[in-house]
Amino acid sequence: MASNSLAHLIEELCRLPGVGARSAERIALHLLDAPNEQALGLAQAIRKLKTSMRHCNVCFNLAEAELCSICSDHTRDRSVICVVELPKDVMRIESTSVYKGLYHVLGGHIAPLDGIGPDKLNIDALLKRARQPDVKEIILAMNPTVEGDGTALHIGSLLESSGIKIKITRPARGLASGASLEFANKDTIAEAITGRQPLP
Amino acid sequence: MASNSLAHLIEELCRLPGVGARSAERIALHLLDAPNEQALGLAQAIRKLKTSMRHCNVCFNLAEAELCSICSDHTRDRSVICVVELPKDVMRIESTSVYKGLYHVLGGHIAPLDGIGPDKLNIDALLKRARQPDVKEIILAMNPTVEGDGTALHIGSLLESSGIKIKITRPARGLASGASLEFANKDTIAEAITGRQPLP
Repeated sequence: MASNSLAHLIEELCRLPGVGARSAERIALHLLDAPNEQALGLAQAIRKLKTSMRHCNVCFNLAEAELCSICSDHTRDRSVICVVELPKDVMRIESTSVYKGLYHVLGGHIAPLDGIGPDKLNIDALLKRARQPDVKEIILAMNPTVEGDGTALHIGSLLESSGIKIKITRPARGLASGASLEFANKDTIAEAITGRQPLP
Repeated sequence: MASNSLAHLIEELCRLPGVGARSAERIALHLLDAPNEQALGLAQAIRKLKTSMRHCNVCFNLAEAELCSICSDHTRDRSVICVVELPKDVMRIESTSVYKGLYHVLGGHIAPLDGIGPDKLNIDALLKRARQPDVKEIILAMNPTVEGDGTALHIGSLLESSGIKIKITRPARGLASGASLEFANKDTIAEAITGRQPLP
Protein backbone atom coordinates (compact mmCIF):
# COMPACT_ATOMS: atom_id res chain seq x y z
CA MET A 1 0.00 0.00 0.00
CA ALA A 2 1.30 3.40 -0.97
CA SER A 3 0.82 5.20 2.29
CA ASN A 4 -0.50 4.77 5.80
CA SER A 5 -2.93 7.68 5.88
CA LEU A 6 -4.42 6.67 2.52
CA ALA A 7 -4.77 3.05 3.65
CA HIS A 8 -6.31 4.24 6.90
CA LEU A 9 -8.89 6.42 5.11
CA ILE A 10 -9.79 3.56 2.74
CA GLU A 11 -10.33 1.32 5.77
CA GLU A 12 -12.60 3.90 7.41
CA LEU A 13 -14.57 4.40 4.19
CA CYS A 14 -15.09 0.62 3.84
CA ARG A 15 -17.13 0.69 7.06
CA LEU A 16 -19.78 2.90 5.43
CA PRO A 17 -22.91 1.17 4.10
CA GLY A 18 -22.79 0.39 0.38
CA VAL A 19 -19.09 1.26 0.07
CA GLY A 20 -16.87 -1.66 -0.97
CA ALA A 21 -13.09 -1.85 -1.25
CA ARG A 22 -13.01 -0.51 -4.82
CA SER A 23 -15.34 2.44 -4.21
CA ALA A 24 -13.52 3.27 -0.97
CA GLU A 25 -10.25 3.43 -2.92
CA ARG A 26 -11.88 5.57 -5.62
CA ILE A 27 -13.34 7.98 -3.06
CA ALA A 28 -10.04 8.23 -1.15
CA LEU A 29 -8.07 9.00 -4.32
CA HIS A 30 -10.71 11.54 -5.32
CA LEU A 31 -10.34 13.27 -1.94
CA LEU A 32 -6.57 13.22 -2.35
CA ASP A 33 -6.82 15.08 -5.68
CA ALA A 34 -9.73 17.31 -4.60
CA PRO A 35 -9.11 20.88 -3.46
CA ASN A 36 -8.42 21.14 0.26
CA GLU A 37 -11.64 23.10 0.65
CA GLN A 38 -13.81 20.20 -0.56
CA ALA A 39 -12.06 17.42 1.36
CA LEU A 40 -11.79 19.35 4.63
CA GLY A 41 -15.37 20.58 4.09
CA LEU A 42 -16.52 16.96 4.17
CA ALA A 43 -14.50 16.25 7.34
CA GLN A 44 -15.99 19.36 8.94
CA ALA A 45 -19.54 18.39 7.91
CA ILE A 46 -19.17 14.98 9.60
CA ARG A 47 -17.79 16.61 12.75
CA LYS A 48 -20.61 19.19 12.78
CA LEU A 49 -23.26 16.48 12.39
CA LYS A 50 -21.95 14.49 15.34
CA THR A 51 -21.57 17.47 17.65
CA SER A 52 -24.70 19.50 16.86
CA MET A 53 -27.33 16.77 16.44
CA ARG A 54 -29.99 16.06 19.08
CA HIS A 55 -33.66 15.05 19.29
CA CYS A 56 -36.59 17.46 19.09
CA ASN A 57 -38.19 17.93 22.54
CA VAL A 58 -41.69 17.52 21.08
CA CYS A 59 -41.58 15.01 18.23
CA PHE A 60 -38.15 13.30 18.70
CA ASN A 61 -37.17 14.06 15.11
CA LEU A 62 -33.54 15.10 14.51
CA ALA A 63 -32.96 18.68 15.57
CA GLU A 64 -30.21 21.20 16.11
CA ALA A 65 -32.14 23.16 18.73
CA GLU A 66 -34.82 22.34 21.35
CA LEU A 67 -37.37 22.04 18.54
CA CYS A 68 -36.83 20.51 15.09
CA SER A 69 -37.30 22.59 11.96
CA ILE A 70 -40.79 21.13 11.42
CA CYS A 71 -42.13 21.67 14.96
CA SER A 72 -40.81 25.23 14.95
CA ASP A 73 -42.35 26.00 11.53
CA HIS A 74 -45.57 27.96 12.18
CA THR A 75 -46.96 27.31 8.69
CA ARG A 76 -47.35 23.55 9.39
CA ASP A 77 -50.83 22.18 10.07
CA ARG A 78 -50.92 21.44 13.82
CA SER A 79 -54.10 19.35 13.63
CA VAL A 80 -52.41 16.26 12.10
CA ILE A 81 -49.59 14.16 13.57
CA CYS A 82 -47.89 11.56 11.38
CA VAL A 83 -46.30 8.85 13.55
CA VAL A 84 -43.21 7.17 12.03
CA GLU A 85 -40.57 4.75 13.24
CA LEU A 86 -37.36 6.68 12.52
CA PRO A 87 -36.10 10.15 11.54
CA LYS A 88 -35.25 8.86 8.06
CA ASP A 89 -38.95 8.14 7.51
CA VAL A 90 -39.63 11.82 8.16
CA MET A 91 -37.07 12.70 5.49
CA ARG A 92 -38.70 10.31 3.00
CA ILE A 93 -42.19 11.72 3.58
CA GLU A 94 -40.92 15.31 3.52
CA SER A 95 -39.24 14.65 0.16
CA THR A 96 -42.71 14.23 -1.41
CA SER A 97 -43.93 17.68 -0.23
CA VAL A 98 -47.53 16.40 0.02
CA TYR A 99 -47.74 16.36 3.83
CA LYS A 100 -48.02 19.64 5.72
CA GLY A 101 -48.72 18.43 9.26
CA LEU A 102 -46.44 17.52 12.20
CA TYR A 103 -44.58 14.28 12.97
CA HIS A 104 -43.90 12.02 15.91
CA VAL A 105 -40.84 9.75 15.79
CA LEU A 106 -41.22 6.55 17.86
CA GLY A 107 -37.55 5.57 17.67
CA GLY A 108 -38.25 2.13 16.17
CA HIS A 109 -40.94 -0.54 16.34
CA ILE A 110 -42.07 -3.02 18.97
CA ALA A 111 -39.89 -6.15 18.66
CA PRO A 112 -40.12 -8.37 21.75
CA LEU A 113 -37.51 -10.80 20.38
CA ASP A 114 -34.97 -7.96 20.27
CA GLY A 115 -36.04 -6.79 23.73
CA ILE A 116 -37.79 -3.67 22.40
CA GLY A 117 -41.08 -3.33 24.28
CA PRO A 118 -43.56 -0.42 23.97
CA ASP A 119 -41.84 1.27 26.93
CA LYS A 120 -38.64 1.73 24.85
CA LEU A 121 -40.54 3.82 22.26
CA ASN A 122 -41.78 7.43 22.54
CA ILE A 123 -45.41 6.31 22.94
CA ASP A 124 -46.28 8.11 26.22
CA ALA A 125 -45.25 11.43 24.69
CA LEU A 126 -47.48 10.66 21.69
CA LEU A 127 -50.51 9.97 23.91
CA LYS A 128 -49.88 13.28 25.71
CA ARG A 129 -49.70 15.14 22.36
CA ALA A 130 -52.88 13.38 21.13
CA ARG A 131 -54.80 14.87 24.09
CA GLN A 132 -54.11 18.45 22.96
CA PRO A 133 -57.43 19.93 21.72
CA ASP A 134 -56.08 21.14 18.36
CA VAL A 135 -55.03 17.62 17.27
CA LYS A 136 -57.74 16.11 15.03
CA GLU A 137 -56.00 13.23 13.25
CA ILE A 138 -53.15 10.79 13.85
CA ILE A 139 -51.63 8.97 10.88
CA LEU A 140 -49.90 5.71 11.90
CA ALA A 141 -47.22 5.54 9.19
CA MET A 142 -45.07 2.68 10.49
CA ASN A 143 -43.40 0.44 7.90
CA PRO A 144 -45.81 -2.06 6.26
CA THR A 145 -44.03 -4.98 7.96
CA VAL A 146 -45.14 -7.43 10.63
CA GLU A 147 -43.40 -5.36 13.33
CA GLY A 148 -44.60 -2.03 11.93
CA ASP A 149 -48.19 -3.22 11.64
CA GLY A 150 -48.02 -4.67 15.16
CA THR A 151 -46.76 -1.36 16.53
CA ALA A 152 -49.53 0.51 14.70
CA LEU A 153 -52.17 -1.86 16.12
CA HIS A 154 -50.79 -1.41 19.65
CA ILE A 155 -50.80 2.40 19.42
CA GLY A 156 -54.21 2.40 17.74
CA SER A 157 -55.75 0.41 20.59
CA LEU A 158 -54.05 2.62 23.23
CA LEU A 159 -55.51 5.72 21.56
CA GLU A 160 -58.98 4.19 21.36
CA SER A 161 -59.02 2.91 24.94
CA SER A 162 -57.81 6.30 26.23
CA GLY A 163 -61.15 7.78 25.16
CA ILE A 164 -59.55 10.52 23.04
CA LYS A 165 -61.95 11.57 20.24
CA ILE A 166 -59.59 11.62 17.25
CA LYS A 167 -59.38 10.28 13.69
CA ILE A 168 -56.82 7.46 13.34
CA THR A 169 -55.62 6.65 9.81
CA ARG A 170 -52.78 4.86 8.04
CA PRO A 171 -51.19 5.38 4.56
CA ALA A 172 -52.97 3.58 1.70
CA ARG A 173 -51.80 0.06 0.83
CA GLY A 174 -51.67 -1.12 -2.77
CA LEU A 175 -49.51 -1.46 -5.85
CA ALA A 176 -46.35 0.64 -5.81
CA SER A 177 -46.22 3.34 -8.49
CA GLY A 178 -44.07 2.18 -11.39
CA ALA A 179 -44.09 -1.46 -10.28
CA SER A 180 -45.65 -4.28 -12.31
CA LEU A 181 -48.30 -6.77 -11.16
CA GLU A 182 -45.93 -9.55 -12.21
CA PHE A 183 -43.46 -8.76 -9.43
CA ALA A 184 -45.84 -7.57 -6.68
CA ASN A 185 -46.19 -10.01 -3.80
CA LYS A 186 -49.47 -11.78 -3.02
CA ASP A 187 -50.34 -9.68 0.07
CA THR A 188 -49.85 -6.46 -1.87
CA ILE A 189 -52.08 -7.63 -4.74
CA ALA A 190 -54.72 -8.80 -2.25
CA GLU A 191 -54.70 -5.40 -0.51
CA ALA A 192 -54.79 -3.57 -3.84
CA ILE A 193 -57.80 -5.54 -5.08
CA THR A 194 -59.67 -5.34 -1.76
CA GLY A 195 -59.05 -1.60 -1.47
CA ARG A 196 -59.79 -0.83 -5.12
CA GLN A 197 -60.65 2.78 -5.91
CA PRO A 198 -62.76 4.54 -8.56
CA LEU A 199 -60.73 5.53 -11.63
CA PRO A 200 -59.74 9.19 -11.13
CA MET B 1 -35.26 18.39 5.33
CA ALA B 2 -34.90 17.45 8.96
CA SER B 3 -31.82 19.45 9.81
CA ASN B 4 -29.23 21.74 8.30
CA SER B 5 -26.11 19.86 9.29
CA LEU B 6 -27.54 16.58 7.96
CA ALA B 7 -28.56 18.25 4.68
CA HIS B 8 -25.12 19.82 4.44
CA LEU B 9 -23.33 16.50 4.96
CA ILE B 10 -25.55 14.80 2.35
CA GLU B 11 -24.65 17.57 -0.11
CA GLU B 12 -20.93 17.11 0.56
CA LEU B 13 -21.21 13.32 0.19
CA CYS B 14 -23.02 13.72 -3.15
CA ARG B 15 -19.86 15.29 -4.58
CA LEU B 16 -17.91 12.04 -4.10
CA PRO B 17 -17.51 9.76 -7.14
CA GLY B 18 -20.12 6.98 -7.32
CA VAL B 19 -22.22 8.40 -4.48
CA GLY B 20 -25.75 9.41 -5.53
CA ALA B 21 -28.46 11.17 -3.52
CA ARG B 22 -29.82 7.95 -2.00
CA SER B 23 -26.43 6.52 -0.97
CA ALA B 24 -25.37 9.92 0.41
CA GLU B 25 -28.49 9.94 2.59
CA ARG B 26 -27.84 6.37 3.68
CA ILE B 27 -24.21 7.11 4.57
CA ALA B 28 -25.14 10.30 6.44
CA LEU B 29 -27.80 8.52 8.51
CA HIS B 30 -25.33 5.73 9.20
CA LEU B 31 -22.78 8.26 10.48
CA LEU B 32 -25.47 9.86 12.60
CA ASP B 33 -26.22 6.54 14.33
CA ALA B 34 -22.60 5.39 14.42
CA PRO B 35 -20.53 5.75 17.58
CA ASN B 36 -18.72 9.11 17.79
CA GLU B 37 -15.44 7.26 17.55
CA GLN B 38 -16.21 5.89 14.08
CA ALA B 39 -17.68 9.05 12.56
CA LEU B 40 -15.04 11.39 13.96
CA GLY B 41 -12.39 8.81 13.01
CA LEU B 42 -13.47 9.18 9.39
CA ALA B 43 -13.35 12.97 9.60
CA GLN B 44 -9.89 12.77 11.14
CA ALA B 45 -8.69 10.32 8.46
CA ILE B 46 -9.72 12.76 5.71
CA ARG B 47 -8.01 15.63 7.49
CA LYS B 48 -4.83 13.59 8.02
CA LEU B 49 -4.74 12.54 4.35
CA LYS B 50 -4.94 16.13 3.14
CA THR B 51 -2.35 17.47 5.54
CA SER B 52 0.26 14.70 5.57
CA MET B 53 0.33 13.62 1.91
CA ARG B 54 3.22 14.51 -0.43
CA HIS B 55 5.19 12.98 -3.28
CA CYS B 56 8.20 10.68 -2.87
CA ASN B 57 11.44 12.50 -3.72
CA VAL B 58 12.65 9.56 -5.80
CA CYS B 59 9.69 7.92 -7.54
CA PHE B 60 6.90 10.55 -7.13
CA ASN B 61 4.57 7.96 -5.58
CA LEU B 62 2.40 9.15 -2.67
CA ALA B 63 4.43 9.44 0.51
CA GLU B 64 4.24 10.73 4.04
CA ALA B 65 7.97 11.35 4.35
CA GLU B 66 10.80 12.24 1.92
CA LEU B 67 10.67 8.68 0.57
CA CYS B 68 7.57 6.56 -0.04
CA SER B 69 7.11 3.25 1.77
CA ILE B 70 8.33 1.31 -1.28
CA CYS B 71 11.51 3.34 -1.96
CA SER B 72 12.43 3.15 1.73
CA ASP B 73 11.82 -0.62 1.90
CA HIS B 74 15.27 -2.29 1.71
CA THR B 75 13.84 -5.68 0.79
CA ARG B 76 12.63 -4.42 -2.62
CA ASP B 77 14.56 -5.38 -5.75
CA ARG B 78 16.40 -2.21 -6.81
CA SER B 79 17.31 -3.54 -10.28
CA VAL B 80 13.80 -3.12 -11.74
CA ILE B 81 11.76 0.08 -12.10
CA CYS B 82 8.11 -0.15 -13.10
CA VAL B 83 6.97 3.11 -14.72
CA VAL B 84 3.26 3.93 -14.26
CA GLU B 85 1.03 6.92 -14.96
CA LEU B 86 -0.49 7.57 -11.53
CA PRO B 87 -0.14 6.59 -7.84
CA LYS B 88 -3.35 4.53 -8.08
CA ASP B 89 -1.62 2.31 -10.65
CA VAL B 90 1.06 1.57 -8.03
CA MET B 91 -1.70 0.53 -5.62
CA ARG B 92 -3.28 -1.77 -8.24
CA ILE B 93 0.03 -3.49 -9.03
CA GLU B 94 0.97 -3.74 -5.34
CA SER B 95 -2.40 -5.42 -4.60
CA THR B 96 -1.27 -8.41 -6.68
CA SER B 97 1.93 -8.96 -4.61
CA VAL B 98 3.77 -10.36 -7.67
CA TYR B 99 6.06 -7.37 -8.24
CA LYS B 100 8.98 -6.80 -5.88
CA GLY B 101 10.86 -3.98 -7.63
CA LEU B 102 10.62 -0.19 -7.45
CA TYR B 103 8.23 2.23 -9.21
CA HIS B 104 8.37 5.53 -11.02
CA VAL B 105 5.18 7.61 -11.24
CA LEU B 106 5.02 9.87 -14.32
CA GLY B 107 2.05 11.90 -13.11
CA GLY B 108 -0.09 11.16 -16.18
CA HIS B 109 0.41 10.52 -19.89
CA ILE B 110 1.43 12.67 -22.86
CA ALA B 111 -1.74 14.35 -24.19
CA PRO B 112 -0.91 17.27 -26.52
CA LEU B 113 -4.61 18.16 -26.96
CA ASP B 114 -4.89 18.72 -23.19
CA GLY B 115 -1.62 20.67 -23.17
CA ILE B 116 0.30 17.89 -21.40
CA GLY B 117 3.68 17.58 -23.12
CA PRO B 118 6.56 15.30 -22.02
CA ASP B 119 7.99 18.21 -19.99
CA LYS B 120 4.95 18.10 -17.65
CA LEU B 121 5.75 14.48 -16.67
CA ASN B 122 8.51 13.15 -14.39
CA ILE B 123 10.53 11.83 -17.35
CA ASP B 124 13.88 13.59 -16.67
CA ALA B 125 14.01 12.08 -13.20
CA LEU B 126 13.33 8.64 -14.73
CA LEU B 127 16.24 9.00 -17.20
CA LYS B 128 18.51 9.99 -14.31
CA ARG B 129 17.40 6.92 -12.32
CA ALA B 130 17.88 4.66 -15.36
CA ARG B 131 21.57 5.68 -15.49
CA GLN B 132 22.25 4.24 -12.02
CA PRO B 133 24.44 1.12 -12.48
CA ASP B 134 22.22 -1.19 -10.38
CA VAL B 135 19.15 -0.67 -12.61
CA LYS B 136 18.86 -3.54 -15.10
CA GLU B 137 15.28 -3.36 -16.35
CA ILE B 138 12.55 -0.76 -16.88
CA ILE B 139 8.93 -1.91 -17.25
CA LEU B 140 6.79 0.62 -19.11
CA ALA B 141 3.41 -0.08 -17.51
CA MET B 142 1.33 2.79 -18.84
CA ASN B 143 -2.35 2.13 -19.51
CA PRO B 144 -2.99 0.13 -22.73
CA THR B 145 -4.63 3.18 -24.37
CA VAL B 146 -3.58 5.36 -27.30
CA GLU B 147 -2.12 7.96 -24.91
CA GLY B 148 -0.49 5.37 -22.65
CA ASP B 149 1.08 3.51 -25.58
CA GLY B 150 2.24 6.83 -27.06
CA THR B 151 3.88 7.80 -23.76
CA ALA B 152 5.57 4.37 -23.53
CA LEU B 153 6.92 4.70 -27.10
CA HIS B 154 8.26 8.17 -26.34
CA ILE B 155 10.05 7.08 -23.16
CA GLY B 156 11.30 3.89 -24.84
CA SER B 157 12.93 5.86 -27.65
CA LEU B 158 14.44 8.36 -25.18
CA LEU B 159 15.98 5.48 -23.20
CA GLU B 160 17.35 3.84 -26.37
CA SER B 161 18.79 7.04 -27.83
CA SER B 162 20.43 7.90 -24.49
CA GLY B 163 22.73 4.91 -24.96
CA ILE B 164 21.85 3.35 -21.59
CA LYS B 165 22.29 -0.46 -21.72
CA ILE B 166 19.10 -1.64 -20.07
CA LYS B 167 16.23 -4.08 -20.70
CA ILE B 168 12.97 -2.31 -21.60
CA THR B 169 9.74 -4.33 -21.24
CA ARG B 170 6.00 -3.83 -20.98
CA PRO B 171 3.24 -5.92 -19.31
CA ALA B 172 1.83 -8.74 -21.47
CA ARG B 173 -1.20 -7.98 -23.66
CA GLY B 174 -3.93 -10.55 -24.17
CA LEU B 175 -7.28 -11.80 -22.95
CA ALA B 176 -8.26 -10.61 -19.46
CA SER B 177 -8.53 -13.39 -16.87
CA GLY B 178 -12.18 -14.28 -16.33
CA ALA B 179 -13.35 -12.48 -19.49
CA SER B 180 -14.93 -14.25 -22.47
CA LEU B 181 -13.81 -14.10 -26.10
CA GLU B 182 -17.33 -12.99 -27.01
CA PHE B 183 -16.91 -9.63 -25.28
CA ALA B 184 -13.19 -8.98 -25.89
CA ASN B 185 -12.51 -6.24 -28.42
CA LYS B 186 -10.84 -6.94 -31.79
CA ASP B 187 -7.46 -5.42 -30.85
CA THR B 188 -7.28 -7.53 -27.69
CA ILE B 189 -8.07 -10.75 -29.59
CA ALA B 190 -5.52 -9.87 -32.27
CA GLU B 191 -2.83 -9.28 -29.61
CA ALA B 192 -3.79 -12.47 -27.78
CA ILE B 193 -3.55 -14.61 -30.94
CA THR B 194 -0.33 -12.98 -32.15
CA GLY B 195 1.30 -13.34 -28.75
CA ARG B 196 0.04 -16.90 -28.10
CA GLN B 197 1.98 -18.88 -25.49
CA PRO B 198 2.65 -22.61 -24.91
CA LEU B 199 0.06 -24.23 -22.60
CA PRO B 200 1.55 -24.21 -19.11
